[in-house]
Amino acid sequence: MNFEYSDLCKDYQARVRAFMDEHVYPNEPVYAAQMAAFGTERWQVPAIIEELKQKAKAAGLWNLFLPDSEEGAGLSNSDYAPLAEEMGRVPWASEVFNCAAPDTGNMEVFVRYGTKEHQEKWLKPLLAGEIRSAFLMTEPAVASADATNIECKIERDGDEYVINGRKWWSSGAGDPRCKVFIVMGKTNPDADVHSQQSMVVVPADAKGVTIERFLPVFGYDDAPHGHMEIKLENVRVPASAILLGEGRGFEIAQGRLGPGRIHHCMRTIGAAERALELMVKRLMSREAFGKPIIKHSVWDSRIAQARIEIETCRLLTLKAAWMMDTVGNKVARGEIAMIKVAAPRMALKVIDDAIQAHGGCGVSNDTPLAYSYAGIRTLRLADGPDEVHERTIARLEAKKWLNG
Amino acid sequence: MNFEYSDLCKDYQARVRAFMDEHVYPNEPVYAAQMAAFGTERWQVPAIIEELKQKAKAAGLWNLFLPDSEEGAGLSNSDYAPLAEEMGRVPWASEVFNCAAPDTGNMEVFVRYGTKEHQEKWLKPLLAGEIRSAFLMTEPAVASADATNIECKIERDGDEYVINGRKWWSSGAGDPRCKVFIVMGKTNPDADVHSQQSMVVVPADAKGVTIERFLPVFGYDDAPHGHMEIKLENVRVPASAILLGEGRGFEIAQGRLGPGRIHHCMRTIGAAERALELMVKRLMSREAFGKPIIKHSVWDSRIAQARIEIETCRLLTLKAAWMMDTVGNKVARGEIAMIKVAAPRMALKVIDDAIQAHGGCGVSNDTPLAYSYAGIRTLRLADGPDEVHERTIARLEAKKWLNG
Amino acid sequence: MNFEYSDLCKDYQARVRAFMDEHVYPNEPVYAAQMAAFGTERWQVPAIIEELKQKAKAAGLWNLFLPDSEEGAGLSNSDYAPLAEEMGRVPWASEVFNCAAPDTGNMEVFVRYGTKEHQEKWLKPLLAGEIRSAFLMTEPAVASADATNIECKIERDGDEYVINGRKWWSSGAGDPRCKVFIVMGKTNPDADVHSQQSMVVVPADAKGVTIERFLPVFGYDDAPHGHMEIKLENVRVPASAILLGEGRGFEIAQGRLGPGRIHHCMRTIGAAERALELMVKRLMSREAFGKPIIKHSVWDSRIAQARIEIETCRLLTLKAAWMMDTVGNKVARGEIAMIKVAAPRMALKVIDDAIQAHGGCGVSNDTPLAYSYAGIRTLRLADGPDEVHERTIARLEAKKWLNG
Amino acid sequence: MNFEYSDLCKDYQARVRAFMDEHVYPNEPVYAAQMAAFGTERWQVPAIIEELKQKAKAAGLWNLFLPDSEEGAGLSNSDYAPLAEEMGRVPWASEVFNCAAPDTGNMEVFVRYGTKEHQEKWLKPLLAGEIRSAFLMTEPAVASADATNIECKIERDGDEYVINGRKWWSSGAGDPRCKVFIVMGKTNPDADVHSQQSMVVVPADAKGVTIERFLPVFGYDDAPHGHMEIKLENVRVPASAILLGEGRGFEIAQGRLGPGRIHHCMRTIGAAERALELMVKRLMSREAFGKPIIKHSVWDSRIAQARIEIETCRLLTLKAAWMMDTVGNKVARGEIAMIKVAAPRMALKVIDDAIQAHGGCGVSNDTPLAYSYAGIRTLRLADGPDEVHERTIARLEAKKWLNG
Repeated sequence: MNFEYSDLCKDYQARVRAFMDEHVYPNEPVYAAQMAAFGTERWQVPAIIEELKQKAKAAGLWNLFLPDSEEGAGLSNSDYAPLAEEMGRVPWASEVFNCAAPDTGNMEVFVRYGTKEHQEKWLKPLLAGEIRSAFLMTEPAVASADATNIECKIERDGDEYVINGRKWWSSGAGDPRCKVFIVMGKTNPDADVHSQQSMVVVPADAKGVTIERFLPVFGYDDAPHGHMEIKLENVRVPASAILLGEGRGFEIAQGRLGPGRIHHCMRTIGAAERALELMVKRLMSREAFGKPIIKHSVWDSRIAQARIEIETCRLLTLKAAWMMDTVGNKVARGEIAMIKVAAPRMALKVIDDAIQAHGGCGVSNDTPLAYSYAGIRTLRLADGPDEVHERTIARLEAKKWLNG
Repeated sequence: MNFEYSDLCKDYQARVRAFMDEHVYPNEPVYAAQMAAFGTERWQVPAIIEELKQKAKAAGLWNLFLPDSEEGAGLSNSDYAPLAEEMGRVPWASEVFNCAAPDTGNMEVFVRYGTKEHQEKWLKPLLAGEIRSAFLMTEPAVASADATNIECKIERDGDEYVINGRKWWSSGAGDPRCKVFIVMGKTNPDADVHSQQSMVVVPADAKGVTIERFLPVFGYDDAPHGHMEIKLENVRVPASAILLGEGRGFEIAQGRLGPGRIHHCMRTIGAAERALELMVKRLMSREAFGKPIIKHSVWDSRIAQARIEIETCRLLTLKAAWMMDTVGNKVARGEIAMIKVAAPRMALKVIDDAIQAHGGCGVSNDTPLAYSYAGIRTLRLADGPDEVHERTIARLEAKKWLNG
Repeated sequence: MNFEYSDLCKDYQARVRAFMDEHVYPNEPVYAAQMAAFGTERWQVPAIIEELKQKAKAAGLWNLFLPDSEEGAGLSNSDYAPLAEEMGRVPWASEVFNCAAPDTGNMEVFVRYGTKEHQEKWLKPLLAGEIRSAFLMTEPAVASADATNIECKIERDGDEYVINGRKWWSSGAGDPRCKVFIVMGKTNPDADVHSQQSMVVVPADAKGVTIERFLPVFGYDDAPHGHMEIKLENVRVPASAILLGEGRGFEIAQGRLGPGRIHHCMRTIGAAERALELMVKRLMSREAFGKPIIKHSVWDSRIAQARIEIETCRLLTLKAAWMMDTVGNKVARGEIAMIKVAAPRMALKVIDDAIQAHGGCGVSNDTPLAYSYAGIRTLRLADGPDEVHERTIARLEAKKWLNG
Repeated sequence: MNFEYSDLCKDYQARVRAFMDEHVYPNEPVYAAQMAAFGTERWQVPAIIEELKQKAKAAGLWNLFLPDSEEGAGLSNSDYAPLAEEMGRVPWASEVFNCAAPDTGNMEVFVRYGTKEHQEKWLKPLLAGEIRSAFLMTEPAVASADATNIECKIERDGDEYVINGRKWWSSGAGDPRCKVFIVMGKTNPDADVHSQQSMVVVPADAKGVTIERFLPVFGYDDAPHGHMEIKLENVRVPASAILLGEGRGFEIAQGRLGPGRIHHCMRTIGAAERALELMVKRLMSREAFGKPIIKHSVWDSRIAQARIEIETCRLLTLKAAWMMDTVGNKVARGEIAMIKVAAPRMALKVIDDAIQAHGGCGVSNDTPLAYSYAGIRTLRLADGPDEVHERTIARLEAKKWLNG
């Protein structure tokens, strides 16, 4: 047993930290100012992002998430975890390193399941950071937590598929650079319940695609990224747009979501660390009732709980990542489910306490806390709500004692 | 002991409910549409508000909050409580009945402590719903939880006071109808710690007043109400602008905040009731894993806890209101502190569960849940953070056993 | 609305308090010493109990629980509630006033459903405090939470019923004065699921009754009361032993359990109040790190939460009692279920914090806290576990929106 | 990073598990029966313990806890952790492997700080499992959480020390085999606050030592181990009885308590694992409302939370152990404090849920749950209450940002 990060990891960690210190934290106000300057025309990219992407690429801090591909940095999941944590301290930092969702998951899909043509047309510019992408799974009309409920139709018509459906929470589809969608839908409604769904690749500008509106998260529009509601009306794609084959949507989803969930957890740990740092600093800097607020012992308990919960969640994230590296995503599915449930809850509690420590300032945008809270709150719903993951975990426990 | 509402209360409750059913709920989309139509020019009042105010006034549902004045409806706090609860189900509904904060508290201050002149100039149009007002207490530079920290200077200069300071979370000051501020500051920095502060009445358009920006709440601007940061630079008011006399700021604050806190709690109960209703309806309307989601028993527990917590908080709110009516705000201060702590926590839990029940929809603006969560989260900080009220309650307990 | 206790209630409350002060608290060590003196022969009654019973009877503080009978004090449920709270401060105090479970529930059953003969033979000496009784419902072999699972057979054989089954958690059956059991079992296994069960009256010394062992509660034997496991083997009772008629067991159980649950809640509030008192006193009396422990603000929060939770649970208990008085147990079933869930949880939290405040002393028998914790922990399981009551509450909520 | 146990550890783990399966679990009823057979004469050792000790010694499973001594098995803390976890599944199992508190901590003290004479006289028979020992630190009269409060006097008188004081929670002093005490007290009341205390070695049968009573934990006497209250009245020991020298008591306490706390945590994880196993098995074996209770989804959530919390606490325990091995107890003090707080809380929640799953059975002695709960509840108080450890953790966080 060894809790020390590998030398490779430590080297990258130092470089990512140095990059964050030099280029990201100092530019948080710049990012905010550029977004503010857009006024109501918010669906565009602040220039600072593209500038920093060039710098990160030049520094060799690029595509760090890709574990097993020639295209990426060749880092294992457990080596990548501490880097994602660093990036998670600033909401928009992952993109700077071309490590942002949903592109990371989509790139993995193209690497594993894409045809040469898909890879040439979509993977290449994604890896280069030239375009962005979206993943269209969730639907407004059904409880998508049970993915068998998904209703979007993908019907074969000669050499084409015709897609009809309505999706929402298509994150990133608000970005003008978003050029491609991976769409989940039903090709085989009469098949076995887990073989009805397929995934197809759809150009964002295909005829019949209408982005109807963005969905705010609490009051944030998350522009220019955005969480979009999209109508697909008789959208036609060539038969070659299908990934892996008809009825294999669930299989791809499983492969895609494991690392995606872990990446979210890693970033969530980083957001919680930052909240704890802000909380402690604030409490040290203000006085009430004759002493620094941090000397009021009710905060001892909150700080201690925050530190404990962050440490334990980090360890579980690392262990899940290490299992993915050593025994594979399938064996690690219990651990992935566990940390998917645990990390957001932990972070929400830490951030909420940090908000409380800041007084009114905490709910405003003068700190990253409220925005961070809103974003992480969605993680208890995205990629399967807590309840579904708890069910998975409970079933694995029951299985242990099935025969006695 | 009798838990039944009085006949007077029941009559008003039925009328408020009927008004809500007929005029408020159906106009929630209208309000949203009118605000949306403003584009970036959000600091204006949607027309529907003024229309509904006329209707409420005509229906005799006006100034219901004023307990002991000829000006109001003459309802006791405990008779008003169930009405405020009804109003609390829609964020903007209280204003329709001229029962919205911070005007309610400010009107009470003018009724109790205002001069004839103040009453003529400010109270009258406030009671008529012609103008609005703000209360300038919290400051960005200090932990205002300990109100003795407040630094704004109010200095006598001949027949005038000169005010210099910086305030924030001045709620309602964004509204173009907001014409008057009540400002808390230090007149007597060398006096005993609870006699240093005073309150003065300041016209919103006084020279030296600058509204610098609004403070968002989890991404919401709360326009046109707004929570503003305001600079007061050599603002001059006549000596008669002082309320009750120098050094009596704390006394007024105590008087003002009791009912104000209770009103917030009443409305919070209403918001929680509505969240529970939305949660149950949603869970009944969707299926997952082969049955309606409400049949998954994890929701039994959440619904039951929600119902229990709402009921107990309502009872404590009613008891606090009843004590204010029968033994006065001072004797009731323990109960007021208790419900100030308990009601927002309860509501945040209920609303959070309701969000979870709605999936992605819950964090968007397709339900009132996320906005409600954000607004109520601020109540754990406003009018004294939880920690200060817990301290008050704990001290009252300790006092019981001081001599043994 | 009126939160004040009635004059009748206040008069009784003052008298019960005076009796507790004069006769009960000072005799807590006497009770402990008398039990200790028994050595291993613990299934006998300490003399102090019978002495105090005489005193309470003489003081007119007797059978206060009986709401609607000539036999009792004629107090409503809401008038009795504050008295039960006082008694609940000392685990054995209720018996002194002949207000202890399970006799109270059993007496109510005899009053409402007993024949003249039952009343003469069992009710009379129970009301006189001459004998005690037990209620045999729960069974070791099945999940008794779902009462339809109960398996004990009650079979008609000529003029008799023959009973075969195994019961446990038959509380009070360890007491040498326990002379009668009310037994729930199946008379009609083929009937509709809620008409299979009946209740019969069985003398404790009937042939075929074997008390096999006592069940400890966290190490406490609860002697001489005891929670017993009882074998019923071909126990024969006359046909007249049946209560109300075959198949009416559920009906009686419903009638019996409502007030029983509320009484437990009332006493639980009292136990929590005492724990809070002990906690605060202890924290005031000890120093750590240079100041009284109560000055460490982490305790402000715990004390405040304790006070809030006690107050809210008391109010809900009172409301449930008041509803039972005014609209009946059936309409009040939601409120009864709510407080059945809420009161023990609240008390366990308060007592646990009080234990923490006492250090090692808290888990020993030097305070009543650990014993109180153990006893109240069983209330989350007895008379239906939390989960069953939460289900009831959730169903009542769902019912509200069935048609929309 | 590597989460796999070492080969050495895995080998021992397999052997300990096999021993538990073969010799411990099957003898749980034997142990209970032998204790029961003692009647009131409970302060003696059930024969099964000594029998199993011989077997464990023969199997080479002996003194596994000693990390750095020739005397022990030479296992690192992180190699020992999974073994202690196995032992923790049965309350008395650790003793079988001569790995029980407080002997483990006392043996470590003798190894590190004892004189040759101490080692010959006390360490040797302790290592051989021939005698047992106790650690006399906590006092009834003061808040011992703040160890500077300790009042027991150790005064030099010629060649001797004279000890006067009162101790309690002296665990293990009830055992007839307990032959030696390590006593903490004040030798230098005028010294700097952390140099006033010393530790001395006192034979259990020294003149002036009176074991006054045992302290129950909830209703358990923990016989024959026992938690004793001990009066020390003019107890004389030779000057050589002092450990390390006057004023070094705190230093020894720090050294002693680190591993001791971690051992408790390891065992606690084991107890929680067993509770989860019992919970799941019980829920699978019973039906309510028409299906196995485990199919009621409220249990999904509880089982999942239990699994998550156990995993995260195990990881943190392992990390703390690994840090003790690699960077030393002092650098690891934050992690030790964290897991000292986290593990008991986690286990209490898991066990409490397991109790709930068992119904009445859960609070009785038919499962190990209630006893386990009681024992682990004391861990939130022993070796420093939660609040003191939270303070330590919070201070370490604050230290990080002292300069900005």
